[in-house]
Amino acid sequence: MVQLLKEKLQLLNCVEKHRSTFASDSLMVQKIISVISEKGDKGVREFTNKFDGVDVCDLRVSDEMLLDAKIQSDSKLQKAVLQASDNIRLFHEKQLPEGFDIRQSDGTKVSFRWRPIERVGVYIPSGNFPLFSTVLMNVIPAQVAGVKEIIVCTPPGKNGLPNPAIMEVCRMLGIKNVFQVGGAQAIAAMAVGTESIPKVDKIVGPGNRYVAAAKQIVSNRVGIDMIAGPTELVIIADETADPNWIAADLISQAEHDTDALTILLSPDKSIIEKTISKIQSLLEHLETKIIAEESLQNNGFSFKAESLDECIDLSNIIAPEHVSLHVVEPETYQDKLIAGAIFLGSETPVAWGDYWAGPNHTLPTSGAARYKGLLSVFDFLVSYSIIQAKDADLLSFDAVISMAEAEGLAGHALSAKLRKGDDS
Amino acid sequence: MVQLLKEKLQLLNCVEKHRSTFASDSLMVQKIISVISEKGDKGVREFTNKFDGVDVCDLRVSDEMLLDAKIQSDSKLQKAVLQASDNIRLFHEKQLPEGFDIRQSDGTKVSFRWRPIERVGVYIPSGNFPLFSTVLMNVIPAQVAGVKEIIVCTPPGKNGLPNPAIMEVCRMLGIKNVFQVGGAQAIAAMAVGTESIPKVDKIVGPGNRYVAAAKQIVSNRVGIDMIAGPTELVIIADETADPNWIAADLISQAEHDTDALTILLSPDKSIIEKTISKIQSLLEHLETKIIAEESLQNNGFSFKAESLDECIDLSNIIAPEHVSLHVVEPETYQDKLIAGAIFLGSETPVAWGDYWAGPNHTLPTSGAARYKGLLSVFDFLVSYSIIQAKDADLLSFDAVISMAEAEGLAGHALSAKLRKGDDS
Repeated sequence: MVQLLKEKLQLLNCVEKHRSTFASDSLMVQKIISVISEKGDKGVREFTNKFDGVDVCDLRVSDEMLLDAKIQSDSKLQKAVLQASDNIRLFHEKQLPEGFDIRQSDGTKVSFRWRPIERVGVYIPSGNFPLFSTVLMNVIPAQVAGVKEIIVCTPPGKNGLPNPAIMEVCRMLGIKNVFQVGGAQAIAAMAVGTESIPKVDKIVGPGNRYVAAAKQIVSNRVGIDMIAGPTELVIIADETADPNWIAADLISQAEHDTDALTILLSPDKSIIEKTISKIQSLLEHLETKIIAEESLQNNGFSFKAESLDECIDLSNIIAPEHVSLHVVEPETYQDKLIAGAIFLGSETPVAWGDYWAGPNHTLPTSGAARYKGLLSVFDFLVSYSIIQAKDADLLSFDAVISMAEAEGLAGHALSAKLRKGDDS
Repeated sequence: MVQLLKEKLQLLNCVEKHRSTFASDSLMVQKIISVISEKGDKGVREFTNKFDGVDVCDLRVSDEMLLDAKIQSDSKLQKAVLQASDNIRLFHEKQLPEGFDIRQSDGTKVSFRWRPIERVGVYIPSGNFPLFSTVLMNVIPAQVAGVKEIIVCTPPGKNGLPNPAIMEVCRMLGIKNVFQVGGAQAIAAMAVGTESIPKVDKIVGPGNRYVAAAKQIVSNRVGIDMIAGPTELVIIADETADPNWIAADLISQAEHDTDALTILLSPDKSIIEKTISKIQSLLEHLETKIIAEESLQNNGFSFKAESLDECIDLSNIIAPEHVSLHVVEPETYQDKLIAGAIFLGSETPVAWGDYWAGPNHTLPTSGAARYKGLLSVFDFLVSYSIIQAKDADLLSFDAVISMAEAEGLAGHALSAKLRKGDDS
């Protein structure tokens, strides 16, 4: 369980090695995309039969089926989902940017504007754990941005129907078009369009390595949110941290997937040792023990650092998806960290961000936090500019002409000369 | 010159065909990336010798060389470049977003923040026309965003040195690290890092199809701005438009590249015919005649629509890089268009946006305007979230627990239960 590493370099090598194994199986996926481009719905049905083992007649989930879907549970869950939706909606509404109109000093009028993407496809996987929270996290930001048409693809289960909780949350959010198609074939269908499944402008949502490979390949013709690798958590703990809570957070990350990467950094060796022993006891009766145990065994690491500052530095080299600060005065460090989401204080489980707090749980993995943010309304908005030279100073024409001539673009210069009234 | 098409579908097929020919030569580029990963600077020098035909000893342009570079021209040009820089800087400063901190109704504290990317690599091509304006358009937004380290790669010319105007503008903007490396080898070097060239977090800037292919391939390990295809312009003109100005704008787009796509849409057939004849006469003595003529011949199209509304609809199906509205009251249409940049009124040449107005000239091509905006400070900023559950209502823990249990994620539920004080 959770290997205790002696050397900083050893830790970084483990992370590097872990991340590099997720190279995608592009060739097979390329083939799937070609087949679906050619055969449309027929191709989608063939791959659904092959990979999901079910024959699907209508790719679109019927209105009746969507209406019948019920989360098998009490009203407490319903209320929780509604409140989580409100939290997510508010957080994303606050992100909505405004454009602006300005006049440059020469009189040129310029504007910066945002418009929503017209049609978005959301992919919701349904592997070990069908995550209805992923529907909330992908659909609500698109709705807040003002996307007119949102479709969802999600794989059919062995009974030939998508997961009922996923369908119910889709209905709750007013999604009318849910397609029972999964994997690379779903990504291909949304990228190229078939008889049943409309071609979308952008595809968002997580998935396994085939889904990731398909998104990478189609990204030259439609927008994608990001290529998601396995989930990652770095916990930084000082001597005040509670090993029981750290252990639970590491387990909660590890249970997602045997490939999940979990790392504990601390200047306090006894915290690490106690955490490792707590993991053992907490796992004992846990329903997800098998996955979590294998994950922690293979991809769980801990490291005793010299100081908290060294923990921060190490974490920033890794630039993980989640960082959790089990330290006193966590606010001191919050803006020094490179990560998709930062959890402050041991009172805050990572699960708080997965379900509840409001910020998106779709986050950059594999070090992408260095250049990519969390999913937000900006992923569903497109910026554009408006330029008007009508009131521009005549001297500006000379400036544009001299720059165009210096670059050798005679036609550019000509287009300004003609407006200025010069004949040639 | 500029084919006049009879059928709407014919126009859309031409656009589709044009765009689909720019599939990238991935295999060769993949090889270049592998070699540079292995051999570092040595590999870069070999490819520079092979593709640029020069032997480069120091990959980094020396401080002296950078200091010596001069645009061969008058002070008018210098002044123009400075004023253009100010316009660009102001427009990008206005884009700077603010984060926010909010408390959800249950007491959970959440923040949305932006931080600059740490290290950015800018690629500046140097083909038919070395465009120093591209340095302004890529470096200034990064500086405005607060990027600490900006490096530039640009190919060496036959004399073994990069274009002097490009070097001078780099110096003007305070860029210290300019590398004389071009093509796919430059992209590879910035993505993986070599002895001389640092690995960057994100690569921006235009380039030929090899550069585009390299950016696509490395996009799973570093950020990229976008994959740029050939430049595109749709002009929509009504009967009030000046065929001379339309012709100049089409030529200015076509002269970039024989692959540039230029389209004129008008409900007025005589405007189209007059424009075609004006193109002939304007080209007569133009220095860039050869490229512009070939470009317009192969990829210049015009179409007589039924109405202005049909022109708008057609343009939106194409979703071009630039749209220019040579119509009365162009403001009426400005927010109905899907394009990277919109030019209002016949008084506004596209060149105004290329050099002067302030909005970025790096724009989405090949229909990407449907899901991708213009280059902006947002390309150099990364969003992240901060989540704190310390003051959250106890009932929220029950909500998180019930959602986690419904998803089957027992460890997630456990991590909330422990905080709430439940033992199991």
